[in-house]
Amino acid sequence: MSYATQKLAEEKVFKDPVHRYIHVRDQVIWDVIGAKEFQRLRRIKQLGTTYLVFHGAEHSRFNHSLGVYEIVRRIVDDSFEGRPAWDPSERLVVLCAALLHDLGHGPFSHAFENVFGLDHEEFTKQILLGDTEVNEILSRVSDDFPQKVADVIGKTYPNKQVVSLISSQIDADRMDYLQRDAYFTGVSYGHFDMERILRVMRPLDDQVVIKSTGMHAVEDYIMSRYQMYWQVYFHPVSRSAEVILTKILHRAKALSETGYAFEQQPTHFLRFFDNSFTLQDYLALDEGVLLTYFQLWMNEKDSILSDLCNRFVNRKLFQYIEFDLAKDYVKMKELEQLFKRAGIDPEYYLVFDSSSDLPYDFYRPGEEGERIPIHLQMPNGEIRELSRQSEVVEAISGKRRTDHKLYFPEDFLTADGKKKALKKQILDLLK
Amino acid sequence: MSYATQKLAEEKVFKDPVHRYIHVRDQVIWDVIGAKEFQRLRRIKQLGTTYLVFHGAEHSRFNHSLGVYEIVRRIVDDSFEGRPAWDPSERLVVLCAALLHDLGHGPFSHAFENVFGLDHEEFTKQILLGDTEVNEILSRVSDDFPQKVADVIGKTYPNKQVVSLISSQIDADRMDYLQRDAYFTGVSYGHFDMERILRVMRPLDDQVVIKSTGMHAVEDYIMSRYQMYWQVYFHPVSRSAEVILTKILHRAKALSETGYAFEQQPTHFLRFFDNSFTLQDYLALDEGVLLTYFQLWMNEKDSILSDLCNRFVNRKLFQYIEFDLAKDYVKMKELEQLFKRAGIDPEYYLVFDSSSDLPYDFYRPGEEGERIPIHLQMPNGEIRELSRQSEVVEAISGKRRTDHKLYFPEDFLTADGKKKALKKQILDLLK
Amino acid sequence: MSYATQKLAEEKVFKDPVHRYIHVRDQVIWDVIGAKEFQRLRRIKQLGTTYLVFHGAEHSRFNHSLGVYEIVRRIVDDSFEGRPAWDPSERLVVLCAALLHDLGHGPFSHAFENVFGLDHEEFTKQILLGDTEVNEILSRVSDDFPQKVADVIGKTYPNKQVVSLISSQIDADRMDYLQRDAYFTGVSYGHFDMERILRVMRPLDDQVVIKSTGMHAVEDYIMSRYQMYWQVYFHPVSRSAEVILTKILHRAKALSETGYAFEQQPTHFLRFFDNSFTLQDYLALDEGVLLTYFQLWMNEKDSILSDLCNRFVNRKLFQYIEFDLAKDYVKMKELEQLFKRAGIDPEYYLVFDSSSDLPYDFYRPGEEGERIPIHLQMPNGEIRELSRQSEVVEAISGKRRTDHKLYFPEDFLTADGKKKALKKQILDLLK
Amino acid sequence: MSYATQKLAEEKVFKDPVHRYIHVRDQVIWDVIGAKEFQRLRRIKQLGTTYLVFHGAEHSRFNHSLGVYEIVRRIVDDSFEGRPAWDPSERLVVLCAALLHDLGHGPFSHAFENVFGLDHEEFTKQILLGDTEVNEILSRVSDDFPQKVADVIGKTYPNKQVVSLISSQIDADRMDYLQRDAYFTGVSYGHFDMERILRVMRPLDDQVVIKSTGMHAVEDYIMSRYQMYWQVYFHPVSRSAEVILTKILHRAKALSETGYAFEQQPTHFLRFFDNSFTLQDYLALDEGVLLTYFQLWMNEKDSILSDLCNRFVNRKLFQYIEFDLAKDYVKMKELEQLFKRAGIDPEYYLVFDSSSDLPYDFYRPGEEGERIPIHLQMPNGEIRELSRQSEVVEAISGKRRTDHKLYFPEDFLTADGKKKALKKQILDLLK
Repeated sequence: MSYATQKLAEEKVFKDPVHRYIHVRDQVIWDVIGAKEFQRLRRIKQLGTTYLVFHGAEHSRFNHSLGVYEIVRRIVDDSFEGRPAWDPSERLVVLCAALLHDLGHGPFSHAFENVFGLDHEEFTKQILLGDTEVNEILSRVSDDFPQKVADVIGKTYPNKQVVSLISSQIDADRMDYLQRDAYFTGVSYGHFDMERILRVMRPLDDQVVIKSTGMHAVEDYIMSRYQMYWQVYFHPVSRSAEVILTKILHRAKALSETGYAFEQQPTHFLRFFDNSFTLQDYLALDEGVLLTYFQLWMNEKDSILSDLCNRFVNRKLFQYIEFDLAKDYVKMKELEQLFKRAGIDPEYYLVFDSSSDLPYDFYRPGEEGERIPIHLQMPNGEIRELSRQSEVVEAISGKRRTDHKLYFPEDFLTADGKKKALKKQILDLLK
Repeated sequence: MSYATQKLAEEKVFKDPVHRYIHVRDQVIWDVIGAKEFQRLRRIKQLGTTYLVFHGAEHSRFNHSLGVYEIVRRIVDDSFEGRPAWDPSERLVVLCAALLHDLGHGPFSHAFENVFGLDHEEFTKQILLGDTEVNEILSRVSDDFPQKVADVIGKTYPNKQVVSLISSQIDADRMDYLQRDAYFTGVSYGHFDMERILRVMRPLDDQVVIKSTGMHAVEDYIMSRYQMYWQVYFHPVSRSAEVILTKILHRAKALSETGYAFEQQPTHFLRFFDNSFTLQDYLALDEGVLLTYFQLWMNEKDSILSDLCNRFVNRKLFQYIEFDLAKDYVKMKELEQLFKRAGIDPEYYLVFDSSSDLPYDFYRPGEEGERIPIHLQMPNGEIRELSRQSEVVEAISGKRRTDHKLYFPEDFLTADGKKKALKKQILDLLK
Repeated sequence: MSYATQKLAEEKVFKDPVHRYIHVRDQVIWDVIGAKEFQRLRRIKQLGTTYLVFHGAEHSRFNHSLGVYEIVRRIVDDSFEGRPAWDPSERLVVLCAALLHDLGHGPFSHAFENVFGLDHEEFTKQILLGDTEVNEILSRVSDDFPQKVADVIGKTYPNKQVVSLISSQIDADRMDYLQRDAYFTGVSYGHFDMERILRVMRPLDDQVVIKSTGMHAVEDYIMSRYQMYWQVYFHPVSRSAEVILTKILHRAKALSETGYAFEQQPTHFLRFFDNSFTLQDYLALDEGVLLTYFQLWMNEKDSILSDLCNRFVNRKLFQYIEFDLAKDYVKMKELEQLFKRAGIDPEYYLVFDSSSDLPYDFYRPGEEGERIPIHLQMPNGEIRELSRQSEVVEAISGKRRTDHKLYFPEDFLTADGKKKALKKQILDLLK
Repeated sequence: MSYATQKLAEEKVFKDPVHRYIHVRDQVIWDVIGAKEFQRLRRIKQLGTTYLVFHGAEHSRFNHSLGVYEIVRRIVDDSFEGRPAWDPSERLVVLCAALLHDLGHGPFSHAFENVFGLDHEEFTKQILLGDTEVNEILSRVSDDFPQKVADVIGKTYPNKQVVSLISSQIDADRMDYLQRDAYFTGVSYGHFDMERILRVMRPLDDQVVIKSTGMHAVEDYIMSRYQMYWQVYFHPVSRSAEVILTKILHRAKALSETGYAFEQQPTHFLRFFDNSFTLQDYLALDEGVLLTYFQLWMNEKDSILSDLCNRFVNRKLFQYIEFDLAKDYVKMKELEQLFKRAGIDPEYYLVFDSSSDLPYDFYRPGEEGERIPIHLQMPNGEIRELSRQSEVVEAISGKRRTDHKLYFPEDFLTADGKKKALKKQILDLLK
């Protein structure tokens, strides 16, 4: 028997709080889960800084990756199996892509990629194709198998049904994370009838469609997404933590570039500071490593770096106000001036942040051709895009809702000490 | 208004997946939660290495501490309030003790304390009484308040009702962790009707008793404990990870003592190796720090240290067999000899471990006076110890059930290479 | 102590699957629950014929009434207590109104009221004010107390906060039934964060408002309603059962009016047929009684009555098609003619039914002044109607979505026998 | 294609709150569900009088029967399929037996059978084999198929694996009702990891065994049973209602036998009173019919019958005390005399009832050969009876725990009126 079709002697199961059990029968899947690059995902939180607001959100990307795998497994083994429009020889590649779709994520991805100009999707590809345990395992299926998996994740794979299961407006990725993030945060959003959605998914030509009898379950899923985005993913306090994190990395990089002598040599970061890092450097990072540095840097003599690290580690976050930069640009300039006069560097301590910068959308059909939209199959066979059929979805889709905030360290402004009048003036402007 | 009775302008709530919401009205509680020593508990997992078996078990001690606080808050605010046998002036001290009872836990506590001869309860006391943010806050209540909190946690506090709520066979600590650990692992054990138990708890003389009408809910709680211990807490695979962890720390300490030159100076550990550490050294540690070192040590030239670290970080754990050391002592000696001859140091690679060594018991009334037993109040007012009233509890209590395992690296013995016959002989002995 | 303030020696609790426990401390509430007119609600299903589609929906109005009481109890005892805008002397009247708001419902209310021209709200008033156990109990509070309770339920009570808790767009009635009906049917809709909504409800002037920080929880509640209406309450198969039920009652009444000799005298119905019934006649009815008659009538010689009863009792329901009466009026007339020619009385066997006839709306602000809309209290104190603030709610509110169906007995048309060509012609028209 | 193997064009699903969905693919199963004798189970509550204590327990035997079917379907389609020890040709017979195992239950079975000397298992057989819709459908599979189904339910079927799935100490019947009754009552007992149990069930020779790795899940199931029996099934208040119900039927029968002239002729009961009933008479009964009569009888001139009916319908139940008949036989006789002197007929108003009379046991291995015990398959292949392996199960099994109560109408004894001293004397004896 070839490696691709090799089955475990006995099915293995993982106890999962969201899907109850994750089932593994394939030797390839079992081996990939054991690979060190996949195990590394245990050390990266699924929701980055969100645990500082929702204390239950301490779950890792490892967790989520198993969940996505399980959903795709159910789709192909239960819903698609035996349907003529589905090519069963695609089973293994889509299972691997599901499991590995987040493989390239680094610690606190969004902030880290932002500061160092990286892209986790690029790292996913490098891990799949480079000198790694994952690549070694996938290559045993066939020489071109790692590339195939990369193509599915990169959305260039020829079979668009396969791509859809991983990356579309209603893919296994989203179905898992909505439920999982709701479970771990404990919020009451994020629930929808996934079992029903799986039952009405159908392979059709070059896409995956939803039988229109399941439209209400899909509406419920879209609403879950909408609620999760505003209640959890865009929560201003977790954005505050992310703002600080970004500024820590900026400061460390800036100090390094100006030849600052760190008391603790930032070994893990050096090659990111000068952009000479390798894949191995990237894989050596995780959130424990970053936090270890931040704790060391709390003792650095650079007061900005040490202060920001103290804020992040000990959760002394920035306050925020609603702020419309376009309208209040003059006020922003004035605040920057006042901050400087008060001895508080506005580059690090007066931060405008907009949720529309975040790489999320809850449902935007047809925009940028980015994500494959949701198509319903009507009783007469006709295919209709969801938002043309559902008033609810039409109402909330397409409208890019943004949320602009200005973050600042209120404690600096209320603390006793010098320049009280100036600080009072700033506070008044910020209220 | 004094600090002790100061209320927040608006009640704060934390979304909690187990208790739905954690409610905070007291300024003191709010301030303690913000203290950096308490925030540090976010960086220490509630269940140590268990996440390597139950991937959902990534929740922290911070999580659990809030939960224990909330349960005690409900008991004193809902069940006890207004009852003559309860002294309402004990409210704040018991809430603080609930919140802070695990404050001294370090990273992977059991293994770490074991290797360095520490005791987390001692550290709890030091943090409460030492130069810390927590101490500064508690001292604002009154000079002797930190000591009172320490006495409650240390079980020497005069009011035994207060002690009972935190440390007895049915305390808030256990009620929270059973439910929380069940929730995050996803197992179906760990459920019991806590709301009913809270309703039938009564302060009485120097103890807290349970109205006998609630006995079945208590039986269910005891069964949950029994099941959680055998299904989750004593799981042999997570013990395997703990064995490796212990051996890593042993090896690093041993190397240090023999003057081994680490490529990466183990700064955070040095004063633990020579037993000269301070409280600040202890507080600088967390699980991210340990894992950062373990990843660095994977590249150390000492092959035992690097191998063990690789095993822990990348989850290449030891296999195990049932092993009765008393009966098979000769076999153990033989195995040790064979391991040596095969070039595998038995001190690190052949590890006997017994669950009865673990600091857990599910219900042992009257043993060592350690934990206050559960007392039922019968309809006629009589007080009876639970196991005298419940056949189920009698059946499972008192019997110390142990589980002995021998751990070893099966991959070393099956790998290609030299000494195949010898390794085969070892494997045969281990089957 | 007066009866109004009399407390039970020990709090009583009911185990409730939706709210976990229903708590009763007041003697008045306890006595009302024991009254026979309230116990009668156990014999009337909350969702009428819905159990024929969702088999779990066998729960009674008794169930729901306790739930509404518990929600109101939490609002007044937890959220409102101590707030200056709330008058605590309204507590008992609102609790009684919550418990008794559905007291006048009869068996399969909608169909029954429809056929006999009744109104359950009128019966609620009669039971509260007439010669009943409930009236006797309420009168012991004060002579005018039964009238006060009736006024709250009838929405004429002066204190509009009190009315709002029972009858508004976000009242305890709706919050209970959405959750309860979801629980018993097993659908995944119907979940929303009620605990959060209760926490942000505020008495203000003559209304109850929602702090705008809770808007998303309210959106979720509105979406639950939307989904429950379309997935459960308007389900075409349960409407099919309701159509048959209505036709049974119509037929029995018509037969009685034409002097038909029933083999089993329909004692319970006689005074409804000739509109001479008393309150006692009404209270003697319940769903068991109706079903007992329907089973007897299965043996009546009138073939229409016996057939319809057989259909309802043994769940041999009508089929249906989408049908636009306005557009297809000619077709309807043609079908009626064909039915007559085929010997199938169209008055009983060709039934047009429209969901917009049903007494439900999921959110219609400002329409008919019927239900008090949901008002948000913005951070600056301003009050805004929900649909002006929420895009989601705006999208789905105000639009009266209707669903028109034509019901008919397909089995009659496909059965072997005479007039096959004619029946085929009918079937073709119906496809 | 034969009827036995005929599949529906599209799988049908029922939404079920316990198992989420019930899946039906077989035409035979679909047809049986539609048969009127099966639909009749909608009109019989699963838990008889329990809804008078746990108001959520209003679910029907229809509900439960679908659940048992679904569990067996999962076992044979998921766990057993493809295993050599399982004969796949048994699939349909075991599915039908699962669905129909409770078919012969009448209204408030226990009391009804008790008074009229009936046996619901006998009726199940009659319905399967008699002139019924169910028989007509099953006969289309093959002439002997109805008898086969009856044999499985009657435990005389040759293939004992098949019998085990329906009737053993861990059969689908029990697994469904524990979970279902817990769900509808809302109690926290009744949860166990059924999915795990299904995964470790194995056909072996002439039985079904459980892999020993699943022992803890089975222990949890046994504990659920233990808790459900004492918390729900034996609840003294629902036994009080059952006592009254039994006495109503006794009284009506006694009156009929003595030629009492009922104002409302008890047509449905007449042939049960004189033991001349047919299957059709039995099938004409349900709980709605009984309650309809009880409501009519509330107006009968016989004061005992009318009083008892009033008690049952309006939930004015008997009080109870613990009572040891063997020890207090003299007291019982004395009470009977005093009741007579007080004009309260002790035959109807002083009722001794013992839970050990009830047809339940939670785990009695080896007793009377009644139920097949649970056998574990050890890793070495050996088979061991559960209670020999599990301390918990050993502790609670085999011990027949009884609970003796004496029921009486306390309101009669405390009411104002004549013979106050005598009633006082009775009350003192009863305290």
